[in-house]
Amino acid sequence: MENWDGSASASAFHVPEWMIQFADQKQEFNKRPTKIGRRSLSRSISQSSTDSYSSAASYTDSSDDETSPRDKQQKNSKGSSDFCVKNIKQAEFGRREIEIAEQEMPALMALRKRAQGEKPLAGAKIVGCTHITAQTAVLMETLGALGAQCRWAACNIYSTLNEVAAALAESGFPVFAWKGESEDDFWWCIDRCVNVEGWQPNMILDDGGDLTHWIYKKYPNMFKKIKGIVEESVTGVHRLYQLSKAGKLCVPAMNVNDSVTKQKFDNLYCCRESILDGLKRTTDMMFGGKQVVVCGYGEVGKGCCAALKAMGSIVYVTEIDPICALQACMDGFRLVKLNEVIRQVDIVITCTGNKNVVTREHLDRMKNSCIVCNMGHSNTEIDVASLRTPELTWERVRSQVDHVIWPDGKRIVLLAEGRLLNLSCSTVPTFVLSITATTQALALIELYNAPEGRYKQDVYLLPKKMDEYVASLHLPTFDAHLTELTDEQAKYLGLNKNGPFKPNYYRY
Amino acid sequence: MENWDGSASASAFHVPEWMIQFADQKQEFNKRPTKIGRRSLSRSISQSSTDSYSSAASYTDSSDDETSPRDKQQKNSKGSSDFCVKNIKQAEFGRREIEIAEQEMPALMALRKRAQGEKPLAGAKIVGCTHITAQTAVLMETLGALGAQCRWAACNIYSTLNEVAAALAESGFPVFAWKGESEDDFWWCIDRCVNVEGWQPNMILDDGGDLTHWIYKKYPNMFKKIKGIVEESVTGVHRLYQLSKAGKLCVPAMNVNDSVTKQKFDNLYCCRESILDGLKRTTDMMFGGKQVVVCGYGEVGKGCCAALKAMGSIVYVTEIDPICALQACMDGFRLVKLNEVIRQVDIVITCTGNKNVVTREHLDRMKNSCIVCNMGHSNTEIDVASLRTPELTWERVRSQVDHVIWPDGKRIVLLAEGRLLNLSCSTVPTFVLSITATTQALALIELYNAPEGRYKQDVYLLPKKMDEYVASLHLPTFDAHLTELTDEQAKYLGLNKNGPFKPNYYRY
Amino acid sequence: MENWDGSASASAFHVPEWMIQFADQKQEFNKRPTKIGRRSLSRSISQSSTDSYSSAASYTDSSDDETSPRDKQQKNSKGSSDFCVKNIKQAEFGRREIEIAEQEMPALMALRKRAQGEKPLAGAKIVGCTHITAQTAVLMETLGALGAQCRWAACNIYSTLNEVAAALAESGFPVFAWKGESEDDFWWCIDRCVNVEGWQPNMILDDGGDLTHWIYKKYPNMFKKIKGIVEESVTGVHRLYQLSKAGKLCVPAMNVNDSVTKQKFDNLYCCRESILDGLKRTTDMMFGGKQVVVCGYGEVGKGCCAALKAMGSIVYVTEIDPICALQACMDGFRLVKLNEVIRQVDIVITCTGNKNVVTREHLDRMKNSCIVCNMGHSNTEIDVASLRTPELTWERVRSQVDHVIWPDGKRIVLLAEGRLLNLSCSTVPTFVLSITATTQALALIELYNAPEGRYKQDVYLLPKKMDEYVASLHLPTFDAHLTELTDEQAKYLGLNKNGPFKPNYYRY
Amino acid sequence: MENWDGSASASAFHVPEWMIQFADQKQEFNKRPTKIGRRSLSRSISQSSTDSYSSAASYTDSSDDETSPRDKQQKNSKGSSDFCVKNIKQAEFGRREIEIAEQEMPALMALRKRAQGEKPLAGAKIVGCTHITAQTAVLMETLGALGAQCRWAACNIYSTLNEVAAALAESGFPVFAWKGESEDDFWWCIDRCVNVEGWQPNMILDDGGDLTHWIYKKYPNMFKKIKGIVEESVTGVHRLYQLSKAGKLCVPAMNVNDSVTKQKFDNLYCCRESILDGLKRTTDMMFGGKQVVVCGYGEVGKGCCAALKAMGSIVYVTEIDPICALQACMDGFRLVKLNEVIRQVDIVITCTGNKNVVTREHLDRMKNSCIVCNMGHSNTEIDVASLRTPELTWERVRSQVDHVIWPDGKRIVLLAEGRLLNLSCSTVPTFVLSITATTQALALIELYNAPEGRYKQDVYLLPKKMDEYVASLHLPTFDAHLTELTDEQAKYLGLNKNGPFKPNYYRY
Repeated sequence: MENWDGSASASAFHVPEWMIQFADQKQEFNKRPTKIGRRSLSRSISQSSTDSYSSAASYTDSSDDETSPRDKQQKNSKGSSDFCVKNIKQAEFGRREIEIAEQEMPALMALRKRAQGEKPLAGAKIVGCTHITAQTAVLMETLGALGAQCRWAACNIYSTLNEVAAALAESGFPVFAWKGESEDDFWWCIDRCVNVEGWQPNMILDDGGDLTHWIYKKYPNMFKKIKGIVEESVTGVHRLYQLSKAGKLCVPAMNVNDSVTKQKFDNLYCCRESILDGLKRTTDMMFGGKQVVVCGYGEVGKGCCAALKAMGSIVYVTEIDPICALQACMDGFRLVKLNEVIRQVDIVITCTGNKNVVTREHLDRMKNSCIVCNMGHSNTEIDVASLRTPELTWERVRSQVDHVIWPDGKRIVLLAEGRLLNLSCSTVPTFVLSITATTQALALIELYNAPEGRYKQDVYLLPKKMDEYVASLHLPTFDAHLTELTDEQAKYLGLNKNGPFKPNYYRY
Repeated sequence: MENWDGSASASAFHVPEWMIQFADQKQEFNKRPTKIGRRSLSRSISQSSTDSYSSAASYTDSSDDETSPRDKQQKNSKGSSDFCVKNIKQAEFGRREIEIAEQEMPALMALRKRAQGEKPLAGAKIVGCTHITAQTAVLMETLGALGAQCRWAACNIYSTLNEVAAALAESGFPVFAWKGESEDDFWWCIDRCVNVEGWQPNMILDDGGDLTHWIYKKYPNMFKKIKGIVEESVTGVHRLYQLSKAGKLCVPAMNVNDSVTKQKFDNLYCCRESILDGLKRTTDMMFGGKQVVVCGYGEVGKGCCAALKAMGSIVYVTEIDPICALQACMDGFRLVKLNEVIRQVDIVITCTGNKNVVTREHLDRMKNSCIVCNMGHSNTEIDVASLRTPELTWERVRSQVDHVIWPDGKRIVLLAEGRLLNLSCSTVPTFVLSITATTQALALIELYNAPEGRYKQDVYLLPKKMDEYVASLHLPTFDAHLTELTDEQAKYLGLNKNGPFKPNYYRY
Repeated sequence: MENWDGSASASAFHVPEWMIQFADQKQEFNKRPTKIGRRSLSRSISQSSTDSYSSAASYTDSSDDETSPRDKQQKNSKGSSDFCVKNIKQAEFGRREIEIAEQEMPALMALRKRAQGEKPLAGAKIVGCTHITAQTAVLMETLGALGAQCRWAACNIYSTLNEVAAALAESGFPVFAWKGESEDDFWWCIDRCVNVEGWQPNMILDDGGDLTHWIYKKYPNMFKKIKGIVEESVTGVHRLYQLSKAGKLCVPAMNVNDSVTKQKFDNLYCCRESILDGLKRTTDMMFGGKQVVVCGYGEVGKGCCAALKAMGSIVYVTEIDPICALQACMDGFRLVKLNEVIRQVDIVITCTGNKNVVTREHLDRMKNSCIVCNMGHSNTEIDVASLRTPELTWERVRSQVDHVIWPDGKRIVLLAEGRLLNLSCSTVPTFVLSITATTQALALIELYNAPEGRYKQDVYLLPKKMDEYVASLHLPTFDAHLTELTDEQAKYLGLNKNGPFKPNYYRY
Repeated sequence: MENWDGSASASAFHVPEWMIQFADQKQEFNKRPTKIGRRSLSRSISQSSTDSYSSAASYTDSSDDETSPRDKQQKNSKGSSDFCVKNIKQAEFGRREIEIAEQEMPALMALRKRAQGEKPLAGAKIVGCTHITAQTAVLMETLGALGAQCRWAACNIYSTLNEVAAALAESGFPVFAWKGESEDDFWWCIDRCVNVEGWQPNMILDDGGDLTHWIYKKYPNMFKKIKGIVEESVTGVHRLYQLSKAGKLCVPAMNVNDSVTKQKFDNLYCCRESILDGLKRTTDMMFGGKQVVVCGYGEVGKGCCAALKAMGSIVYVTEIDPICALQACMDGFRLVKLNEVIRQVDIVITCTGNKNVVTREHLDRMKNSCIVCNMGHSNTEIDVASLRTPELTWERVRSQVDHVIWPDGKRIVLLAEGRLLNLSCSTVPTFVLSITATTQALALIELYNAPEGRYKQDVYLLPKKMDEYVASLHLPTFDAHLTELTDEQAKYLGLNKNGPFKPNYYRY
């Protein structure tokens, strides 16, 4: 079984090496299909398939029931057994969680209300593969209200909330997911979504690309009826661009990862809050007066820097890109090389997307009690591996907090072993998830209803007008009142009164 | 003589109405070529050609010499008379101003140093039409050092610093400009730059599009030898896009107005400072505790809001674009319609680019002593005309400050008669001009040296790599130290170590 | 047994009613000495004696050993049994906690170093009653290093860390404290500290006033040898001022609660961080764009407002004091009455020190999902009792988080049942505790060494010079370098080069 | 004529040396009573008597009328000639200025309204010596409305607005002041206020202490009828404290300089704005990315630091007081010694109240183009004298801006020759002056109406309740709504519902 995307593109311009490595690892995976091997390798398939949200803990569930859901026969109250979840009896608890989430996802609820008149997804058969949480449930039930039929699997073997899955199954959604799937379970669940007698999907909603990959490998003919793919993750989007470059993408795909609203919320605004939260929950440190170096001044770095500056920290920034560097200067941060400040800082935060930004040499030179953590999307930014040497002692002092102790007694405080701090040590506000879910819903509607020819076999950004619509659906949360253009003003500006309001290259 | 850009495009998608009006006015202009008519109409040709910087006052010059420079015979110390300035004897004073400006334009000076080895503009014959200030002089002399020959006119009839023009003429630059040109002088100067025996330009540097327009009209054949146009202004750029749409653009053009560094500096960072400066210089008001409404949350609005919030004002925002609106919410501003707060605010600031954002009805409802001003690029945002009615009394209380008094005694404080506040009532820091001048120099180099076929007859943004280069040349000002990628990191990220570092759609 | 402080003063100017109520309750307490009654009434003795820090959880201890420590016979490794702790075998774990705390309490460690030369507390016999935590242990061992003998009890029946108590007992400190004391245990422990054959205290370090109270009631003669009292809490300080007014204070007392450094750190700087922390840990909410009303603009309110504004919330303030109100205005907050905004806000935070600031009427008018919490020192600010009515449903959704549900389905999110949020739902940074502990140590040194007559039978603030010394001991943490006056400058300013640097009324 | 305050106190604790020098200089003054000598020495009498506000320029007045007002005979329209101003005909213009100022001084206007019922100053005969501006005129006319008779002189020989003085004279106020008085004129005017047939003052309102001084020297018996002195300036207050220490103060005096509202407004809030304004108006510099060192972190320093940080500057702080130093740390500023950063900073700002904070050695080490200025109250902070040496060249580049040029070409940009930047280069908002004027009015009312014995022959701070009243009168400007205590709450807190609300040592 060869690499699904050919990866001849791997050496092409601007394809990150980590994409190539990842492709290599997958080939390894296919050679050693032992259970353990598979599970560990599942990580290589999509980064998100094994990471878990700390908030994604099961609420009530500590049952000792070790029977695999695959081996159980369950029915919901209407008699259907077209699902596979941990325990259908947990449905009631899950329903309450969904109801609470509904209160904080006003945009999807607004879509549902509109759907009482029109059903823009009537006839849509959506197969989905995402984290299965209360928020996802609100999305799925919204898609249902908009007219779609859905079948769903989990994109991560740990992140499923069993009670929510049960509630979805109870209300008639064919869901195949539970917390703690094996690698084999993982693909079995996906297959159960896709491979159904008398039902064939015409839309894909993916998070990480595994579902798309599976259909490419196993049921390539299905693409004849599929109208489009909506993909949310960095990894999945990269795969799609590679497919497109290789000429192998046979349906339109929508990259919702790079939508304005998603980018700003997931990165700038969310990180502005979660950096403080992650540091506090793990270390109880005081921010005032602390010296901090933030590596990288993209949206994530901007958020981290703004928050820490506001809390009274003294913040230094490192950058490779002179434009971002100049922004850091104008925003009031000293731009330095890491070496210049490494001896004096109290906290080191990486958010570059790069690898080995913090090396063993840097770690050796840090002062006692220095805190080191990562806010970037992969766990390669800090060279944690270099700390696993005999002369250093590791001491786990709290969950997600390690003291690494040098022979002379110096301690470094390493958070989440260098993995993404805000995924590991804080939670993601429902409001942010609401933005993303709404974007996904609109992307599905757009692709499903687009007239012939609007989208070709390529990867698209969400049309600006829909991005604007996502934003507008979230304004009522803030009791925010938008101004409308008068006819005269619209004419003056050469704009349609309903948008889009900006040229495509506008930077916000 | 018909409209230079045909303007069939005027009704096309997204062409602002003010462009169309502007085209109409020009037709008017050609019908009534009286002197007064022409002068007033010159304003319609390019907005920037008659606005003046408050800082652009002539330093020493209040001479009563009313002789037109066109009627004087002057020679510089080397015997050349290929120039036309107010008074060549002011050269020494102008030279000192240029030297002071050089100290604050490190990027151009760095380019000059590099030029000791290579002359990337050797053979270039540049005709330019910009504001003639000390900063422009540093640019021109840098272009000279890079190998170019230059001829220059002013893009604005008021903004020329006579001493600087004299200094340039003295050191051998054919400059045709003085403060207080008539409409006729304006075009005469431009013509003297272009229409030269034995010298033909191969590059155009324009600010407002008047020079480009003149060549199109008078010497269309010149374009055969011209390698490209570099245009800085919003107006000029719009013209170029219209030409391009109409299929009439016959050389490549570089839009430097929308470069990242220019946008962020001219708008966000510069307005963050100039809103405070403009308000203080005109009103001496205290910002703390004041209620302010800012209309528009683009880069300009963002800068205004951030500054006023930091000074203790309570800031409300109005927006038409839901994405910018959501940003305003997340940044901590109440999003309102103007009507909701118009009775309670102490200051109203427009920065929308729109027209009639503040109407007479709004003005009628404002409270006593409310300050009204505009930070947007045109003077249409506040309906100032509606205030010129008999029942209202105007009282000029300071330069640029009018009290408009209602019959019941209520006073509105109108700044700069609704024209751009920071152009009228504060100054533009040299540092910002340095960014722009460097961008212009690099755009000229790029267009002049680009291999056949890289640029077609279209409008381009500056390549990201050059934008990054402009930024990097300004980092030493802040003693900022950029980090370099290791080979390993560059490979991992799939990037060239020297950039560009971001995809084109990156928003910064 | 009559009221210990006479409380004739209760009706005097500026004696808060809560002090009077508190005195009343104590009388009740003495009438019904049942075990349950006593325990619940112990709360009335000092507010702090039953509140518990969330971080003060025992680390390792979940033993089912239900034997009361009073009934156990334990010896430390040196054979001493002059202590009473949960389990002396936990000493090693406690020692490690103490060592970690030492790293973050540089000021006390600096005092220890100085103590190698001089022993300013030689001969001091200190009886103490405080929270027993790793930080207190560092204080006690520092007092020991300075020459003092110490005996210690807990000021709170829940807050003792058993491991730390064990470590102190192991290293020879007579400690009488464990987590989960009964009311009776509480007083027994205090008595064991004081009532010792052949040892009589000459200094008191108290937190809440219970120890002082006990000695007043039981061993009033002891005061003949006591050189002074150092009191940290608001409650204890109030008691001392009442005693002083009633002419019953028979030794000097030092009010360390109102020291500059303590006030600023415990209130302004600490709350700036803990309001965010407390809200995040309990609700995972997003701050950006949220409307918040903060009741009270003292140091705590200032900290809360600054933090939330920085995170993008829109903050309203209520105040009764026009000076603080004007500060709120100048700092950029709308000053409102609670009624004006109660329908629109997402969060209500009280920090007034007052009672019934948020009434049932306010609670009835809040919008769905509004979060209500208290950052003030007592739990009277929100009228929580008014919510305990049959028509409202309480639902505990997380630890410290209740949903109170109205008949129409509206939910209010009440945090920590209206008790102090940052004590209940976040932790206090060691750095803040370090400031307080250092202040206590210096106050003890000052009172113990003061020449006859410097202090009378009254309540004093720490001399400014010592407050400055506390601050200076904490500067090295920030690698902060203080400038020294030259002789000439000191003379010019009329100051001693070593301080104090400000007049007493200086406000910082 | 010996020194008015005896100055034996000069060597006492905490009397700044500059007070002593000032006393010495005055002795000098008395020895050399030439006109020039006197004028230059008048500066030594009170710092404020010769400094001038930049905004205090005469509006219309550039008349060449060189006749001294003392030599002119003028009458107002009612026939009175009991005044001496430049030109009574300017009254109308002055009246309009006063009317404009009234709009921004709501607190005084509110007092006037209240005065329609009661006349708390009925019978008061106030002699005043302050800057004579539109704002002062509003104060004087308010005092009149409250029942007082007033006579007035200027406290500064340059700051009188002739038109305003004329308007006051026209409406019947005996005013003796004009712009450009000689030293001799200065005392003559004061004498004309005091030394009147049949009228003797019973209240003094002073700014700088010169009026008080004059009465002490010339008419000591007047104090028998004087009920009190209200003094606004630092200098005047110091004098009063010295008199008090020397046992020579024979009436109560009110120090309004140290009122909370005045301190916070004049220093923290006002400097937060004026540092930006002063720097911009003189240098047009950009703040973003600039490195700044602020010497001193009192209220002025705090204001400067907050503003510059908000504008994107990187700010370092120097301090001698460890408490303020710790505040700087917690507020996010690196605390350094000046030497550590002097080579790298772009701006140096002093606000210490100290002398020689910036020495020639520092100036020698600054980098090219470094800007140096002073925000402290005296002009001794920068050793400007040390720059007046032959090897350095001074170049005046703008009003208030000098380039000092080193032999190697390095330039330092010195603002206002080291005098107070915001007095010299920016304006003081009316709102701040309103706070001060209201405080003065209330202090006069309090002293005039206080029952026998409330005030002794000492210096007092304004009672907190009146400070609160000043604040409350300014809240309507911000449409701010104060909350009132309920009876129950007032009882609970032990407070009067109308204040005062805080203990005296409260720091705000």
